[in-house]
Amino acid sequence: MEIAELSRGMDTIWVVLTAAMILLMEGGFALLEAGFVRQKNAVSIIMKVFVDISFGALVFYFMGFAIMYGKDAGGLIGTTGFWMDGDLSHLQLNISTDTYWLFQCAFVIAVISIVSGAVAERIHFRAYIVYTILMTGLIYPISGHWIWSPSGWLAKLGMIDFAGSAAIHALGGFAALAAALFLGPRIGRFGADGRTNIVPPSNLPLASVGAFILWFGWFGFNSGSTLSATNENIGHIAVTTMLASAAGCAACILFTLFRYQKADPPMAINGALAGLVGITAGCAFVSDGAAILIGAVSGIVMILASERLEKHRVDDPVGAFAVHGISGSIGTLAVGLFALPGSAAHTGLFYGGGWYLLGVQALGLAVVAVWGFALTWGALKLIQWFKPVRVSRDDELIGLDVGIHGVPAYNQEHDFLDVDKLRSN
Amino acid sequence: MEIAELSRGMDTIWVVLTAAMILLMEGGFALLEAGFVRQKNAVSIIMKVFVDISFGALVFYFMGFAIMYGKDAGGLIGTTGFWMDGDLSHLQLNISTDTYWLFQCAFVIAVISIVSGAVAERIHFRAYIVYTILMTGLIYPISGHWIWSPSGWLAKLGMIDFAGSAAIHALGGFAALAAALFLGPRIGRFGADGRTNIVPPSNLPLASVGAFILWFGWFGFNSGSTLSATNENIGHIAVTTMLASAAGCAACILFTLFRYQKADPPMAINGALAGLVGITAGCAFVSDGAAILIGAVSGIVMILASERLEKHRVDDPVGAFAVHGISGSIGTLAVGLFALPGSAAHTGLFYGGGWYLLGVQALGLAVVAVWGFALTWGALKLIQWFKPVRVSRDDELIGLDVGIHGVPAYNQEHDFLDVDKLRSN
Amino acid sequence: MEIAELSRGMDTIWVVLTAAMILLMEGGFALLEAGFVRQKNAVSIIMKVFVDISFGALVFYFMGFAIMYGKDAGGLIGTTGFWMDGDLSHLQLNISTDTYWLFQCAFVIAVISIVSGAVAERIHFRAYIVYTILMTGLIYPISGHWIWSPSGWLAKLGMIDFAGSAAIHALGGFAALAAALFLGPRIGRFGADGRTNIVPPSNLPLASVGAFILWFGWFGFNSGSTLSATNENIGHIAVTTMLASAAGCAACILFTLFRYQKADPPMAINGALAGLVGITAGCAFVSDGAAILIGAVSGIVMILASERLEKHRVDDPVGAFAVHGISGSIGTLAVGLFALPGSAAHTGLFYGGGWYLLGVQALGLAVVAVWGFALTWGALKLIQWFKPVRVSRDDELIGLDVGIHGVPAYNQEHDFLDVDKLRSN
Repeated sequence: MEIAELSRGMDTIWVVLTAAMILLMEGGFALLEAGFVRQKNAVSIIMKVFVDISFGALVFYFMGFAIMYGKDAGGLIGTTGFWMDGDLSHLQLNISTDTYWLFQCAFVIAVISIVSGAVAERIHFRAYIVYTILMTGLIYPISGHWIWSPSGWLAKLGMIDFAGSAAIHALGGFAALAAALFLGPRIGRFGADGRTNIVPPSNLPLASVGAFILWFGWFGFNSGSTLSATNENIGHIAVTTMLASAAGCAACILFTLFRYQKADPPMAINGALAGLVGITAGCAFVSDGAAILIGAVSGIVMILASERLEKHRVDDPVGAFAVHGISGSIGTLAVGLFALPGSAAHTGLFYGGGWYLLGVQALGLAVVAVWGFALTWGALKLIQWFKPVRVSRDDELIGLDVGIHGVPAYNQEHDFLDVDKLRSN
Repeated sequence: MEIAELSRGMDTIWVVLTAAMILLMEGGFALLEAGFVRQKNAVSIIMKVFVDISFGALVFYFMGFAIMYGKDAGGLIGTTGFWMDGDLSHLQLNISTDTYWLFQCAFVIAVISIVSGAVAERIHFRAYIVYTILMTGLIYPISGHWIWSPSGWLAKLGMIDFAGSAAIHALGGFAALAAALFLGPRIGRFGADGRTNIVPPSNLPLASVGAFILWFGWFGFNSGSTLSATNENIGHIAVTTMLASAAGCAACILFTLFRYQKADPPMAINGALAGLVGITAGCAFVSDGAAILIGAVSGIVMILASERLEKHRVDDPVGAFAVHGISGSIGTLAVGLFALPGSAAHTGLFYGGGWYLLGVQALGLAVVAVWGFALTWGALKLIQWFKPVRVSRDDELIGLDVGIHGVPAYNQEHDFLDVDKLRSN
Repeated sequence: MEIAELSRGMDTIWVVLTAAMILLMEGGFALLEAGFVRQKNAVSIIMKVFVDISFGALVFYFMGFAIMYGKDAGGLIGTTGFWMDGDLSHLQLNISTDTYWLFQCAFVIAVISIVSGAVAERIHFRAYIVYTILMTGLIYPISGHWIWSPSGWLAKLGMIDFAGSAAIHALGGFAALAAALFLGPRIGRFGADGRTNIVPPSNLPLASVGAFILWFGWFGFNSGSTLSATNENIGHIAVTTMLASAAGCAACILFTLFRYQKADPPMAINGALAGLVGITAGCAFVSDGAAILIGAVSGIVMILASERLEKHRVDDPVGAFAVHGISGSIGTLAVGLFALPGSAAHTGLFYGGGWYLLGVQALGLAVVAVWGFALTWGALKLIQWFKPVRVSRDDELIGLDVGIHGVPAYNQEHDFLDVDKLRSN
């Protein structure tokens, strides 16, 4: 046995285990979203997560991976590796291309799962499948190529986005915003009299556990992004991840406690996630103190953004834009402020690196945000041309579970469902 | 520090971590099954999973492991290693026997958990404990010895079953079928007028999360079966696992969408699992494309088999036979078709290896299926001799939770339960 | 690449992965506790777990870690490493201090989560935040220093507590007892007529899955405590962990089955946990057989202790004292009986090591128990001085979810909550 073989094996198990942790995050998304929406739509949101993971993985295998990581053309797009075939030698990995694909596959599934929350309770299932194919096959791989392919044009400018505050979360968040605006609010969410109606989360314990599973998976997300088990930074990455999420959660607990006299459970949950999203870009490059600050700011701004969105009558059922879009933006920009000297090619503003890095981060963020928003809007517009994107009023009122999928999420019936009655529903 | 020591350590943590992931699958089984059965039986099914993991582990420690992996006698049975004592040097492991036992223990618990779903809502708890002891101490270890002990007679013929489509899933699935037939359908499931009554799944969000946890654990199941962190195949195994499950899930979503105009949630869940079961035998030996095909076929055939079973008035509450028995059979045979040249001792039919491997796979499958079915039938017959295997009509109607375990699964009572009332129930 | 670098990388990923597994246990605690309490308090208990993980991590970062593992002063307290700054070279780790901190952070969060169950359904949220800060910043770090800092006075006497039956579980359990006594029983739990009212667990499937997640995390807890991936003991530790929990669970199933004719689900759950708690101190030092015995005894004594507590009208909603305090004590003492020759500095009584080790274990246990009890009582007394520790009668009757946090855990409302009505609640 050679050292090189051991090293390769070690990197392989590290990446496979962390990839599995990220894939488990789909369970987290499913619980989080099913707990936050109304009971009548709890299954339909989970079915979207099944679409994310199944269609997402296949489409990313057939084409998304090639477009994102294939041989570069003009800094804009990858061109090899469709169906994992063709020349991928430029990736220069210590692990097999297979293993690398699995890790990247877990990422793309996370992106589309961000959007699934924003379109909850009203998107048509078939339309969602088509959108998933476009997102995982084209939209994300292209902007991902710009940031994460070594030859991508944003990468070449020096943009830093370690595990994807921009590439994953801001993209997904702005796509979520576009989708929420395109679909419009759920029936009755904003009353004709100007009142805002509160949608009761159907199952907060489920949603909370979703958050804990996401938290667990995030250690795979951030630490695993080293792709190497001997990277000296792994411990530091895991610690900044922990501190930022703790700070985001604690900040939201205290903020709502002082503001409303009631510590708000959904905000505590989303606060932890906002902290995680915020630290994702900089986890390898910022200090512990900066991580705490980034987490806390991400949490509180997420709350303020949620309130602002509600005032503007934007209906984003699980807060996907506030958590992923806003905190992802904060995290992307924060790298421009806090990147420690020597940790990356450029240094942050607060450590004497000047404005360059911050400028690049802002540019990259703006590009990704516009890309995610515009392409999602365009994709839904396109789908709309062929098929309705939003369910019928009847199905929305009865709930998508029974309306679209023919089965309720929870059933306390003691004995049997009547087949004909169920089928005729 | 020597390289050998590092290598041993690396293999050890790889096996311990993947074993823990497989053991977490018990949580997945518990959720899946509790979500699929009626609310009145949700606790009773979870209690069975606790029996699986606790009695299963202890019995496998005392005798099962020895019978499966002890020194071979005639290719038929192991004879050393009871209570982990005695000569086990023939195993020639790079990890400690302890570590190996843990991984194998996680497997045996999975086998018995397959059966627990098929007997849901009507088996007597004491009978189930006895059956668990027989299954984990004798039935599975003996057929497992044939396939997985280096000296087992099926292993010597060249049967290939990497992580157990046959040894685990087909065995468990055919045992589940025997148990479902032995017990008969739940009261009222098939009406006297020939009608089939649909049993409402009590909690589909729980069942879904069960599937995600099983999915996560499966990466441990398949990749961990290398038992070595430097096995070059780990990445490939994880990828075929991912692709097959995605294909199984996507195929079932599309199939039900086109057939019933409603994408069916329980079938999406079971489709993902069917894909996972199907790829378990061949994950290390087939191409990515074959994995996708195996997954998709496993999913769709699982649906057709479920319908066929229902037509024959066989009542298998969570689809254990369709998912594990049928897809396990498909996966076992598929190796005979798709095994890549050089990946194993024999090559599959489609790659010029001729009919030999397919014949061996078919023989092994038939043996395991008959063994699992017959021994389970015999075991239940034996238990029946002493004690009723099925609960009383009253307990079945009231539900096993209150009837057998004295406590309901869900309780919305605001304050207190009346002790005497509860105890007298 | 050097062997030393590989070794360091391997230890790092081992500790980071096991730390993540331990942190996932918070999801387990949340589910377990939310499932065991009444539905009207299910969110409030989860909010406590969010406090544990967020405030706990930050406080342990700012001061707890320094007090526990900083440069020793008099065997009593650590003095360096506040905010991870200052000299920590005496730790002599093969992993970075960062990585070590993460693992220890996961531990402290477990400690405070033990207490959260005992104070369920009646502690005031603000008081709980303050108590969490005191526990994670002072109480646990100080006694932890005595046992786990190489210069701690109990460590120097030779006390053995591998992964914390005493340092974590007995401390947390006796703190839980103090808190339960300080707060007094929930309204109506013990009737004026001497009757004991049974509080219905709101969601046993959730509680069960919590147990499976805790079980999974425990492999990280115990095996990860080696801090080294090349430790020859890892496999043995994982196996004793598995056997003890299986024995605890099986013993409780059989015990309740024979005693009440009904296998009791909450006792099966707590039996598995009791076995895990019991083996935590000795997992690396006792034989497989001893592990089975320790697990079984821990389980049964846990049941007897629960009954005894109820008779004494002590109200510990999730059995935190019985599971963690009692089984933690058993586990700590058991090391004094069963420690194998050569496994540690001293040998257990049953293996010819004489009474010394047992004496030290008993002393250490007594010290930790008194410390946890007294300091918790004092802390709550202190908090009481400024703010009420227990919620108002009204809030307790209406439930803490709506009373304190303004939102119910489960909501079957079809459409909307009335904002004003909710806010005015």
